[in-house]
Amino acid sequence: MSNSTKVDDTISVITSDTANLVTNEEEASTSHYIQLNKSSDIQDSGDGSHGIRRRQPVQKFEPGSMNILSAKYESLDYDTCENHLLLDEERKRGYPFVVWKDIARWFIVLLIGVITALIAFTIDICIEEFSKIKYKQLKKSVDTYVLLDELYIPYLMWVLTNICIVFIGSMLVSYVEPVAAGSGIPQVKCYLNGVKVPRVVRIKTLFVKAVGVITAVVGGLAGGKEGPMIHSGAVVAAGISQGKSTTFNKDFKVFQYFREDHEKRDFVSGGAAAGVSAAFGAPIGGVLFSLEEGTSFWNQGLTWRTFFGTVVSTFTLNFALSAYHGHPGELSYPGLLNLGKMEPFPFQFYELPVFMMFGVVGGVLGALWNHINYKLTVFRIRYVGSAWLRVVEACLVAAVSASCGFLMMFLLDDCRPLGEDPTKVPLQLFCADGEYNTLAAIWFQTPEASVRSFLHDPMGSYKPWSLLVFVVVYFLLSTWTFGLAVSSGLFIPNLLTGAAWGRLLAIIIQYMLPGNSINPAKYALVGAAAQLGGVVRMTISLTVIIIETTGQISNALPIIITLVVAKWTGDFFNEGIYDIHIQLAGVPLLPWEPPPLTHNIYASEVMSHPVFTLRTVENVGHIVEILKVVSYNGFPVVDPPLADDAEVTTYKRLRGLIRRDQLIVLLHNKIYNENANTTWSNFNVDMDMFRKEYPRYPSIDKLDIQEWEKTCMIDLRPFMNPSPYTLPHRASLPRLFRLFRALGLRHLPIVNDHNEVVGMVTRKDIARYRVWRHRGHMGMEELLLSSEI
Amino acid sequence: MSNSTKVDDTISVITSDTANLVTNEEEASTSHYIQLNKSSDIQDSGDGSHGIRRRQPVQKFEPGSMNILSAKYESLDYDTCENHLLLDEERKRGYPFVVWKDIARWFIVLLIGVITALIAFTIDICIEEFSKIKYKQLKKSVDTYVLLDELYIPYLMWVLTNICIVFIGSMLVSYVEPVAAGSGIPQVKCYLNGVKVPRVVRIKTLFVKAVGVITAVVGGLAGGKEGPMIHSGAVVAAGISQGKSTTFNKDFKVFQYFREDHEKRDFVSGGAAAGVSAAFGAPIGGVLFSLEEGTSFWNQGLTWRTFFGTVVSTFTLNFALSAYHGHPGELSYPGLLNLGKMEPFPFQFYELPVFMMFGVVGGVLGALWNHINYKLTVFRIRYVGSAWLRVVEACLVAAVSASCGFLMMFLLDDCRPLGEDPTKVPLQLFCADGEYNTLAAIWFQTPEASVRSFLHDPMGSYKPWSLLVFVVVYFLLSTWTFGLAVSSGLFIPNLLTGAAWGRLLAIIIQYMLPGNSINPAKYALVGAAAQLGGVVRMTISLTVIIIETTGQISNALPIIITLVVAKWTGDFFNEGIYDIHIQLAGVPLLPWEPPPLTHNIYASEVMSHPVFTLRTVENVGHIVEILKVVSYNGFPVVDPPLADDAEVTTYKRLRGLIRRDQLIVLLHNKIYNENANTTWSNFNVDMDMFRKEYPRYPSIDKLDIQEWEKTCMIDLRPFMNPSPYTLPHRASLPRLFRLFRALGLRHLPIVNDHNEVVGMVTRKDIARYRVWRHRGHMGMEELLLSSEI
Repeated sequence: MSNSTKVDDTISVITSDTANLVTNEEEASTSHYIQLNKSSDIQDSGDGSHGIRRRQPVQKFEPGSMNILSAKYESLDYDTCENHLLLDEERKRGYPFVVWKDIARWFIVLLIGVITALIAFTIDICIEEFSKIKYKQLKKSVDTYVLLDELYIPYLMWVLTNICIVFIGSMLVSYVEPVAAGSGIPQVKCYLNGVKVPRVVRIKTLFVKAVGVITAVVGGLAGGKEGPMIHSGAVVAAGISQGKSTTFNKDFKVFQYFREDHEKRDFVSGGAAAGVSAAFGAPIGGVLFSLEEGTSFWNQGLTWRTFFGTVVSTFTLNFALSAYHGHPGELSYPGLLNLGKMEPFPFQFYELPVFMMFGVVGGVLGALWNHINYKLTVFRIRYVGSAWLRVVEACLVAAVSASCGFLMMFLLDDCRPLGEDPTKVPLQLFCADGEYNTLAAIWFQTPEASVRSFLHDPMGSYKPWSLLVFVVVYFLLSTWTFGLAVSSGLFIPNLLTGAAWGRLLAIIIQYMLPGNSINPAKYALVGAAAQLGGVVRMTISLTVIIIETTGQISNALPIIITLVVAKWTGDFFNEGIYDIHIQLAGVPLLPWEPPPLTHNIYASEVMSHPVFTLRTVENVGHIVEILKVVSYNGFPVVDPPLADDAEVTTYKRLRGLIRRDQLIVLLHNKIYNENANTTWSNFNVDMDMFRKEYPRYPSIDKLDIQEWEKTCMIDLRPFMNPSPYTLPHRASLPRLFRLFRALGLRHLPIVNDHNEVVGMVTRKDIARYRVWRHRGHMGMEELLLSSEI
Repeated sequence: MSNSTKVDDTISVITSDTANLVTNEEEASTSHYIQLNKSSDIQDSGDGSHGIRRRQPVQKFEPGSMNILSAKYESLDYDTCENHLLLDEERKRGYPFVVWKDIARWFIVLLIGVITALIAFTIDICIEEFSKIKYKQLKKSVDTYVLLDELYIPYLMWVLTNICIVFIGSMLVSYVEPVAAGSGIPQVKCYLNGVKVPRVVRIKTLFVKAVGVITAVVGGLAGGKEGPMIHSGAVVAAGISQGKSTTFNKDFKVFQYFREDHEKRDFVSGGAAAGVSAAFGAPIGGVLFSLEEGTSFWNQGLTWRTFFGTVVSTFTLNFALSAYHGHPGELSYPGLLNLGKMEPFPFQFYELPVFMMFGVVGGVLGALWNHINYKLTVFRIRYVGSAWLRVVEACLVAAVSASCGFLMMFLLDDCRPLGEDPTKVPLQLFCADGEYNTLAAIWFQTPEASVRSFLHDPMGSYKPWSLLVFVVVYFLLSTWTFGLAVSSGLFIPNLLTGAAWGRLLAIIIQYMLPGNSINPAKYALVGAAAQLGGVVRMTISLTVIIIETTGQISNALPIIITLVVAKWTGDFFNEGIYDIHIQLAGVPLLPWEPPPLTHNIYASEVMSHPVFTLRTVENVGHIVEILKVVSYNGFPVVDPPLADDAEVTTYKRLRGLIRRDQLIVLLHNKIYNENANTTWSNFNVDMDMFRKEYPRYPSIDKLDIQEWEKTCMIDLRPFMNPSPYTLPHRASLPRLFRLFRALGLRHLPIVNDHNEVVGMVTRKDIARYRVWRHRGHMGMEELLLSSEI
């Protein structure tokens, strides 16, 4: 048995009666099932693995199901391995090294801020400039052919341009780096939670993401650039802090001491914050985003560094943009705010119910958006599997987007006199001379510019009918777009939809209260916040981001009320869009709290067993064999059982824990000899030996180990973690959960009363137990574990 | 040996060679030493306690020293005791109870927000109204007597008024509730860190605090009301969430299920945030304050509830204030902003060095302020011990404050034409007709109003000399005031000092660059931020608070830059003022990270041993005896040693952990019988039995236990925590620290390879190891533990 698939900690499928109970029996008869494991697999794993607790002849799972955990995700390891090498290094380097590392951290954060901002600037400018060219050309064409009554020509031009541009981005995403699809926020969120999403922080991903988002927005899709910018920040952080690139296979030999999961994750969290800061010009919002959405572990030092990074990022971006806009150095130039400078709007106590009503509308629409997108995503998982089909779908959406825009301009003749609207490309179309088509003004610019239009245009700039049609069309387009094989986010499309219905409601309110003068900007902003809040369900960071991006704190209270109500309303129906996508991908994300009422689930039920253990002084051949046979990443190191101690042959006393990658490095560097009687210091071993290989270690099959070497012995004691956190087998699930979550563990040995290992718990064993809440009810479900998704 | 002093987990004094090394030998010869323990004490504790590791004949400590930990502080216990009672309750109540608890939490937070805001409103209005009366009368008196050339009469009136008012507050603080002194922020910070500061969240404290802060501000001291408001919020939260009051000895029989340290702390964190929100009208700043300064454990659900509480608090306050100011319901009325609505000020890239320079000045001045206050506090600890001396000192400061004000008005004749300045009490004094004395305008109002004057008055309202004298005087007065036996904070005084020197620097810049028109408001605001940042060293929450309280986000970047630089500069010299006071009080606060380079300190060195253990089925007499003899709060429950197992007589296998308060409740309710053969369910025991007594349990000496009962047996197994977190004796200090900090533990049993208890670790054992950083250098020191401070 040598199939070492990329399974982190558990082999094959874990299931249980509870898990089967939650599978809807009605659906089971009609839907598309896949037979996961042949019975031979089950027999194979039966003799060695501790993953399967209740064997069942056939494992069924439905693609696109919400109750599957994928086995392909590994955990990050935040626990420091306090072995002799670490102690040795500490002793040698002393306090100056601590100070130096601290300075290096600040320096890296500075670099991350600057580079993230420059990437965001480049994306920004490319989108601006390319869009300007595209819409100028289209306008010229419309102006020409409208007179000839041959409007199909500019229409076809529009559709073809969109398809071509989107095709490039979609090809890149589908064939070069599929992980660059979408906004990237779910992936970053998983990474910060402690899940290693493969390839998510590589430079290749960054490149595809950056090009992809430019093509998506320029290609006229209902997508935004904010999510990809946040993802870019995370990649930049991971790249710089490690001082090497896997994509280019280049090691700059700097910052080696940050080559561990803990440090890397801290930097990535700072990078994501810098990305938010660059995307929205919101330094405080960036810090809060990292905190609210991503971070499991937080401390003051890290918060301050993150804050520094976001400030640097905003400064750099503002400096570059102000230079680009011809106001070099004028950092308070209001054109730097993404959504334009809002005026403060006065509000009264009796307006609170209105804001709450907006919140309810946003929550309901957001939940509906999420539901449609969820159904579409399931459909995609089931029927749009191959890369070329995904490219075709992206091109189809590009064509439909252009068609919708064209039909709306063509059919709804909403004309306004020129001069009122700040559009750059006023299109006359069928309007009278001196007038322009307002819908063309909305469609012939980037979505971000359209948000600005809805927020700032005076009352009466749009007809109610135009707004209604626009809301419906854009709502559907944006939910179709999110999840395509292109790089684009959902912030801007949802802000746009929300601003449009906010404006529509403002018109209705004005109609009902004809005496008052209604400020459309107020309701457009509140609507935009409500819609976005209903979709993503962030509250605090979103409030701050909207405040920072409109430069107006006085509007904070209405926005907060609206967002809180939108979140509550949305949560009544379903989960936030990012959580839905994370669940569909089967990522073992750990929630903030253990599931309630699970104190009666014990570690002995949660853990996988029996366990593969290694002896303190172990035979090389045995290690190689174990590494080849099983795919676990952590092995308890135990005392060998005493010969005369007949009753303890099965379990052995825990002495430490060693990771697969440590064993691989030891074997790779041949740190062994015939009788293990020399000490490790003879080998001139230090931490750098391990850091050099981080994060991708050679596979065990690639190691060249001669037959004669297999009789050698390794003394594992200097390398193992001598005091791993453990729990007794009678510990409850919440106890396991808290230890795991708070300390970011990857492996947790379960011991009996005699300190003998009886099982191992990994992230997936815990993430399996999930609570569902739905319309006031709640319960517990146990997820299936599958290696197929 | 029956001296059960209120020592949490360790008896008497812990010291070590390292600790002695850091005691300055030079000072030792001259300074005032106290002999802590008589040698008889040492002998007493030698036979039973595990606190003393290295016995020394005489323990010396210097009052006011920074390297002492007080033994009087106990830890909060966040770890859930998962005993049979809890499982039973979970089973009985099920999911509806989980939902109900969640709703109750939101409701409590709502109440906390409303009540905190109403208290803040009351404090606000009392200060406003009383100050108005006071300064109106003084003005009348000055106006009368200046003509008669008998200015000593209003001067004496002023001094006497101040003394009388401050006397009331100071008497209350000194004799009724000394813990209500100061701003309360250090105490709240300690509580949130997990330290039970005695009486800090009682209603009596709230009352003294509220009255105290009114007297302090009306009494003309250089103090602010913000700190006390934050403390008030914390008390309100603790009171409401527990549904009972110890002060009034009243149990409302509601929210019993929140009677545990974990839930209480969560509410207190929300209450502190609501307090910030009410003090500054800063809902987001409040959340960030809780996060930045206080919280060790954080999760999303708690964040959202906290946010809800701060929003409710701001709303309630704004509603009440707007009604008071005659604009009922107009929530965006700019008069609700504490520091007045700032206009956005444009700034250029080249102004960055100027802001950095302000940051450096603020950092240096802040560090100096902290240093002077530190020296004063040490002086107070050593020589101003008795309550009446402290009252005298407070009255002295009140008199000096009035005298300084009077002298400045009298000597510096800074006159301006009337009509320019928005002062309510224009005082002519020696000025020409139609002019007013600007310094009188500053002194004859509350410090908060003075901050507004410095921020908003036009350029040229003050002479540079007046400002300089004011800065020096107020700087010294405020640092003298903080730490007096009155309830007052330091936010407003430092903002005032900073705004004054900011304005002074603006005048100097204007003088050096005569061509430009300098906006004094910009520099006053940046100066205020820099000074306050240099003192308290908060960055993120302070930025947001200043932005929210001036209603202007556009000024965020300059403020951020200034605050970051001020923090860096200040940290170069010393620590933030709250940390200094916490260290002087000897509170075992756990920092964010374990001290660096301590992987070579092992649990076996950190732990206290030998350990007092209880058997799973234990004799009542033995329990009573142990509880009387030692003052520990946690006892490992162990298997009795097997009779034939000769080698394991000393150590015993760990089965669980039981707390002192649980034992007391069991004894109090007489949950025992002759042979322990009946099960616990016969006694009709449930969790409420324990909740009823929370948080103050009867002392063991108060229990009435007959001699015959002492032969009874208790089966501890249904009540103990069956799976406490443990660590092996070879675990390192950072490992201990992380487990302790992340999970909020109170007791951590240390076990050997056979799972036998060999020691116990508590908060103080870990907090003893502290790193110091000073001017770029760092090192480790070991603190002394004393029961005397």
